[in-house]
Amino acid sequence: VTLRELGEFGLIDRIARAAGRRKGARSRDVVLGIGDDAALLRVRPREHCVVSNDARFEGVHFRLRSESPRTVGRRALAASLSDLAAMGARPLGCLLALAAPARTPVRTLDRLVAGVLDESVRHGCPLVGGNLSRARQLSLTVTVMGAVARGSALRRDTARPGDRIFVTGTLGGAALERLRAERGRGRVRSVPVPRLRAGRALAALGRRAACIDVSDGLDADLAHLLRRRGLGAEIDSARLPLPAGFEAACARARVDPRALSRGGGEDYELLFTLAPGASASRLSRLLGVRVTEIGRVVGRRTAAGRLRARRGWRHF
Amino acid sequence: VTLRELGEFGLIDRIARAAGRRKGARSRDVVLGIGDDAALLRVRPREHCVVSNDARFEGVHFRLRSESPRTVGRRALAASLSDLAAMGARPLGCLLALAAPARTPVRTLDRLVAGVLDESVRHGCPLVGGNLSRARQLSLTVTVMGAVARGSALRRDTARPGDRIFVTGTLGGAALERLRAERGRGRVRSVPVPRLRAGRALAALGRRAACIDVSDGLDADLAHLLRRRGLGAEIDSARLPLPAGFEAACARARVDPRALSRGGGEDYELLFTLAPGASASRLSRLLGVRVTEIGRVVGRRTAAGRLRARRGWRHF
Repeated sequence: VTLRELGEFGLIDRIARAAGRRKGARSRDVVLGIGDDAALLRVRPREHCVVSNDARFEGVHFRLRSESPRTVGRRALAASLSDLAAMGARPLGCLLALAAPARTPVRTLDRLVAGVLDESVRHGCPLVGGNLSRARQLSLTVTVMGAVARGSALRRDTARPGDRIFVTGTLGGAALERLRAERGRGRVRSVPVPRLRAGRALAALGRRAACIDVSDGLDADLAHLLRRRGLGAEIDSARLPLPAGFEAACARARVDPRALSRGGGEDYELLFTLAPGASASRLSRLLGVRVTEIGRVVGRRTAAGRLRARRGWRHF
Repeated sequence: VTLRELGEFGLIDRIARAAGRRKGARSRDVVLGIGDDAALLRVRPREHCVVSNDARFEGVHFRLRSESPRTVGRRALAASLSDLAAMGARPLGCLLALAAPARTPVRTLDRLVAGVLDESVRHGCPLVGGNLSRARQLSLTVTVMGAVARGSALRRDTARPGDRIFVTGTLGGAALERLRAERGRGRVRSVPVPRLRAGRALAALGRRAACIDVSDGLDADLAHLLRRRGLGAEIDSARLPLPAGFEAACARARVDPRALSRGGGEDYELLFTLAPGASASRLSRLLGVRVTEIGRVVGRRTAAGRLRARRGWRHF
C-alpha cells in the first residue's frame, strides 16, 4: 500500500492511532494533542517555553540505503531533543512534518513514525501534532517544545576569556559510522542520546555556563558558541574524549582520528564553558555523564587568540 | 548569487539581519530569538502554549510561475496563523524551516523570507528561529507558537446537535483565483487574513464554540469539525457568503459558484458552531468581521443526518 492509496488523512489517522497506543507517549503537560487546529501545552508559571526545529531530507541528511526508516525517525527526534538539552530544558511535546512522494510505501512511513515515537516515549516528549504533504523527496521536520525555569536557560552568548571548555561523552563515533556506511561498510545504526538530564543539571548549577550541542562538529560548534562575543579557543587535541577502539577503527578506515573527532559532527554531545574552578570529575558526577575538559576560552586579542584566528575558523 | 555560493550559514545570518531590521517583528514575549539552539518565549501564568505547523512545497502547494516568492512567504505564515486564530490564541512567535536546491537564487529566498516577515510584523508574530536545508524541491515549513487563556481555547470537539453553524468573511475567492492562475489567467496575489481578532473574541465569549479554519474547503473542514462526535450538518447553500462579483466571475470561468465556495479551500475563514440564540449580526459586531449563519448541526441518527451520511462526506 502506498501513500497515494491510503491518502493523506488516512495516514494522519494512522499516525494518531500509533501515537495513542504508546502509553508513555502521554503526559500531564499535553492539554490537547493530535487532531485539532493546534496542540495545547502546559508551561509552568515560572518557566519559559522553548522551541526549536530540525529538517532532514533523504539524500542530503540520510539515505534509506544505509539506514533503516526506524533509525531515521529515531535520529530526527533525538537530534531535536538535543537542542532542548543544550538549553537546559525539559521536553513538553513535538510536532512532525512528514513529506513523501505519493509512491512511498505506507510501511516505510509507519517505520519512520515508529522511530519518532520510540524516542518520544524514551524521553517523555509526546507527539502532539504535525503536518503531512506530498513532495518529490522524503523528509521529516521535527519541532520540539520544552520548558525551562526563567533565567536559567543555557545560552550561547555567556562565555568569557579564561573559561574552561568541557564536553560530555565522546566525539567522532557518529562521523566514523557514517563514513563507513558511505563506503558501503555497514549501516548507520546508532542513535545519539540527547543529554537532557545533563543539560538540566548544568542549568541548575546557576553558574553562567554557555552551551551548545555538537551537531556540525566540535570546531564548527565551538565557533558558533564563541563568535557572538568575538572570542577564540585553545583546544588540547590530546584530551579529546574518543570512543573505545576509535583509533584502531580509524586506522583501518585510513582516516585521522583527531580530524574526525573535531570535524565530524552528529555526536549531539553538550559542549559548554564554565569559569575556572569546576573539575571534570565533579561535573561528571553532577551531570550523570562523563565530562572532559578539553581547553579554554581566549580573547581574540591575545596571542593565542590571534593564532587561532590566523589558523582560521572557517567551518561555516 | 545562489544558495550554493552564499552557503547555509551565510543565509541564516542574512535572515537574522533581515528579521532584526523589521522593528515591529520584536516583542516582549520573545526572551531569546534567532541564533541559539532554541528560542525562548514568555507564556503568562494562566495561559497554555499553542503550537501548530504547516508545510508548503513548490509544485504541490504553490508554483513560482504563477505566484511571487513574496506572496508564497506571506501565504505560508498567514495560513499557520489561521490555525492560532481557530484556537482563539494570540501569536507569540514563529519558526521557518526553509529548504531549497543549491542552485536557488538568494534573491528568491530573500523574497520568500521578506513575505514571511511582512506577515510576522503585521500580526505581531516575530520570527524566532528555524532551519535551513538543501533539498531537491523548494519548501517552507512554518511553525507558529501562541498562547491562550487556560480553558478558553476553541476546540473542534465541542459541537452538539442543534448548534448553529457560522462562517466569517466570504468563501470561494481563493479557489477562483487559483483556478484562474492554473488556467494561465492572472497570478495568485491575494493573501488570506488570519482571523486572529475574531478567534480571540469568540474564545472570550466563553460559549462552547467549536471552531476550525477553512483550509481544505467548507465541506471537508465541516466534516473535520463534526466527525469526532459523529455529527452531521445541514448547510443552506443559498446562504453561503460569496465575494462581490463572484457569481459573474464564475460564469465567465464556467465553474459552479456554489461548488467552488463549498469545495475550494484556502479561504482561511473561521467556521464555528454555537448553541442557538446568537445572531449573525451581533456576532459580526463582537468579532469585528462579517459573520454569516449557514446551517445547523444534526445528529447522524436524524433523518437529515442520514441523508448527509448517504450523500457522503468523502472529502478526505
